[in-house]
Amino acid sequence: MKERLSIVKVGGAVVENAVSLAAFLERFVSLEGRKALVHGGGRVADTLCHSLGIEPKMVGGRRITDEKTLEVVTMVYGGLVNKNIVASLQAKGLNALGLSGADLGWLLAHKRPVKEIDYGFAGDVEKADTELLSLLVERGVVPVFAPLSFDAQGQILNTNADTVASSAAVSFAGKFDVSLYYCFEKSGVLADPSREDSVIAEINREMFTRLKSDGTIAGGMIPKIENAFAALEAGVSEVIITSASALGAGGCGTRIVL
Amino acid sequence: MKERLSIVKVGGAVVENAVSLAAFLERFVSLEGRKALVHGGGRVADTLCHSLGIEPKMVGGRRITDEKTLEVVTMVYGGLVNKNIVASLQAKGLNALGLSGADLGWLLAHKRPVKEIDYGFAGDVEKADTELLSLLVERGVVPVFAPLSFDAQGQILNTNADTVASSAAVSFAGKFDVSLYYCFEKSGVLADPSREDSVIAEINREMFTRLKSDGTIAGGMIPKIENAFAALEAGVSEVIITSASALGAGGCGTRIVL
Repeated sequence: MKERLSIVKVGGAVVENAVSLAAFLERFVSLEGRKALVHGGGRVADTLCHSLGIEPKMVGGRRITDEKTLEVVTMVYGGLVNKNIVASLQAKGLNALGLSGADLGWLLAHKRPVKEIDYGFAGDVEKADTELLSLLVERGVVPVFAPLSFDAQGQILNTNADTVASSAAVSFAGKFDVSLYYCFEKSGVLADPSREDSVIAEINREMFTRLKSDGTIAGGMIPKIENAFAALEAGVSEVIITSASALGAGGCGTRIVL
Repeated sequence: MKERLSIVKVGGAVVENAVSLAAFLERFVSLEGRKALVHGGGRVADTLCHSLGIEPKMVGGRRITDEKTLEVVTMVYGGLVNKNIVASLQAKGLNALGLSGADLGWLLAHKRPVKEIDYGFAGDVEKADTELLSLLVERGVVPVFAPLSFDAQGQILNTNADTVASSAAVSFAGKFDVSLYYCFEKSGVLADPSREDSVIAEINREMFTRLKSDGTIAGGMIPKIENAFAALEAGVSEVIITSASALGAGGCGTRIVL
């Protein structure tokens, strides 16, 4: 029987606030069993961009990563956010290891081809390799993944944290029984966006199609759930969309099922 | 018999220039056997400090690390410089892994006590632990160390790259036959600072005392050589001070011996 591994993705809003981040990390530490963390860091990067006079450019929720912006996200995601999380987890007794996609060459990507939009240094994932990482996880190491990949020419690339999380989950699923948690600000996928108590307990493909067409599921939630289905099809045992503050509390959030 | 491990420290001047860094990394890649890299990044951090309106403060060659400066060095050393080196090495076929001192908890330190000078968030090394890293090195991984440590409260600290290199060398010496290379701009320790061909081939303790008292060895070279003696006494097999451009060329530089 495979050992269980929880992969938790936490987004920018939790990460950018020291108090909410500390509270989240407490809950993460208390999660039982093997685990890994994937973090965003969006608005921390925006703040540094502003200080340096770089105007953040977003199209359809995705960042346009020009050369200067790539420097900023490499510094903020790979350095500031990642290293502070790793140091906090170490102080709480977890043997954390921070990684960009280049570290151990775990997340190979290629620069997104230019079609209508030039996303700049944005990486589309080609291959996730967690063989050595699995060995470390078995020895108690907790990987902390920054949303950065790299290409075969040695170029660091900016990659969506949800995609990094599902890539890690699918790759680890060969060795572990993987649960993937997408944590964000809401309690789960809501039937009524104005009511936090309207969490939909479970969504399958049919429901997803229906909820998309009636507009209940929209915006950034669509690719998140599409990622979830892809992960389940590729061997991940469960995917749960929940709030960062409910992590570890049983029975919360929205479970995505095939 | 222990396997050989070369630990190479390269300073800020090589790192801050893309052309010299690329040339150095080519030579590093061609070094035979197991290896690890320790990088500085001094002036890259200064540039970002200036862009953010932070005035770099140095006392006796050491940086005063206030809170804002700590953010900058965490971003630059742990993020920008480290991740770009790791990605470059991956592209050249080395399985590089970038680490701050917090990653795998390998370099525990404490904040330097305030005496005449308050160095701020500067870390004095307490303990280096390379047990898991040794396992990775045996599997072909090339650690790339940023000059950052952490303390038991989860605080990232700025730590001199020479010290990081000797700490790593001493810790790995339990498992490996370690050669430590300090690479800098000159060809080695010079008998006449104006002549690059005046490299002193070998320096022992007696010569060091003499060369210090006559002023041949001065400034930042003094702690570098003191670090070297300490490393040799703690089990490191050899320490060589050489130029970044001579790395891998046999018989160059200054060998420090007990």
